[in-house]
Amino acid sequence: MSRMERPFDEELKALKEKLLEMASRAEEQIALAVRALKDREEKLACQVLDREEAVNLLDIEIDEMCLRLLALRQPMAADLRFITSGMKIGSDLERIGDLAVNIAERTIDLLKHPQLKPLIDIPAMARLAQDMVRDALNAFVNGDEALARDVCARDDQVDRLNDQVFRELLTYMMQDPGTIARAVDLILVGRHLERIADHATNIGEDVIYMVRGKTIKHHIEEGRATGLKGCAGGE
Amino acid sequence: MSRMERPFDEELKALKEKLLEMASRAEEQIALAVRALKDREEKLACQVLDREEAVNLLDIEIDEMCLRLLALRQPMAADLRFITSGMKIGSDLERIGDLAVNIAERTIDLLKHPQLKPLIDIPAMARLAQDMVRDALNAFVNGDEALARDVCARDDQVDRLNDQVFRELLTYMMQDPGTIARAVDLILVGRHLERIADHATNIGEDVIYMVRGKTIKHHIEEGRATGLKGCAGGE
Repeated sequence: MSRMERPFDEELKALKEKLLEMASRAEEQIALAVRALKDREEKLACQVLDREEAVNLLDIEIDEMCLRLLALRQPMAADLRFITSGMKIGSDLERIGDLAVNIAERTIDLLKHPQLKPLIDIPAMARLAQDMVRDALNAFVNGDEALARDVCARDDQVDRLNDQVFRELLTYMMQDPGTIARAVDLILVGRHLERIADHATNIGEDVIYMVRGKTIKHHIEEGRATGLKGCAGGE
Repeated sequence: MSRMERPFDEELKALKEKLLEMASRAEEQIALAVRALKDREEKLACQVLDREEAVNLLDIEIDEMCLRLLALRQPMAADLRFITSGMKIGSDLERIGDLAVNIAERTIDLLKHPQLKPLIDIPAMARLAQDMVRDALNAFVNGDEALARDVCARDDQVDRLNDQVFRELLTYMMQDPGTIARAVDLILVGRHLERIADHATNIGEDVIYMVRGKTIKHHIEEGRATGLKGCAGGE
């Protein structure tokens, strides 16, 4: 409760630190889950499951910090936007943590069977996604619009890698039906990583919105989806 | 701007109506996407893509209504929670809309090939998910905790149906590699519906949190995940 008596700027700083802490834990969870998968280490996958609770608790803490700041400080303009963005970012990070858990669960399943193939693209996707999460949070705490835009732009790379993973695994399945269950698990891992990158992109969009004070969110999305929308060609 | 002069209660009512409108559009998008898939009507899938923009615009409108309410009214306690929950629910509905678009995209892809099988479980999942979205929003506008809990409880049914869809499609693929591409598309549709139900569950959890003023969110999740966490058994 003593926190309530701290100056507003310090409380905002504490909120930033808490969000950075949560982001770094979420990032670690991704790294750990994909390392478990790549190196076939079930113990690491179990660690991801064990650590989920801590990530979830941070989301609750952040939510409560934000509500308290809104209620007691009644912030205006830029601070208001910062705090409401913080709440949303907390939710995105929590879902990123859930997705890392999903990857760990797939991994535990996959480790019951022989390795399908050495993994190259999936670890590359994971690294891209982790960097996006880290940079999105740095963009947020520093109000860095250029970095936020850069994060959003990187989403396409992850999508492309995921398409590649998807197509390669389809080929495996077609050639040998014995690989189907494992290939589907790996396709799902690819999807989870793609969604992690989507959440990082959402954070980037929130930062741009916060900095510019207007919503560009869905315009970016529109641009990103160009070519998908035309029904003539389909995907 | 005239809205700023309206009494606070009317502004809250307008926010509720806007959220209900958005929910009903998101629900329609799910219904349309799955009808397109079931009845093999590409035109319906295209309608989903055409209508996405309207759903996205509602999210922006809701966000701005909430920010304005926070800035100008400086609400306390219950109203504060209501408005911040409204912002989060807007984001959930927007992502539900995105997932309906993903289903429509998969459908356009699937319609290029002969039908793999008549669909029973996927339309059933879609109906469950739609009801969850509708009830979650009703729980929100009426502060109905029992209904919100009921929504969260239904998530398991959707998960079970999805597991069933998944297993059945694996069997198809193993028996006939010629079905793989289509089966994977249908597996992804199942996943999208599962995620829609997850978003409805998130909304239900936000409502319980709002009504009770404390966070039960991650405890529900813990309960839901029981059995998944134990590394001995895996999934």
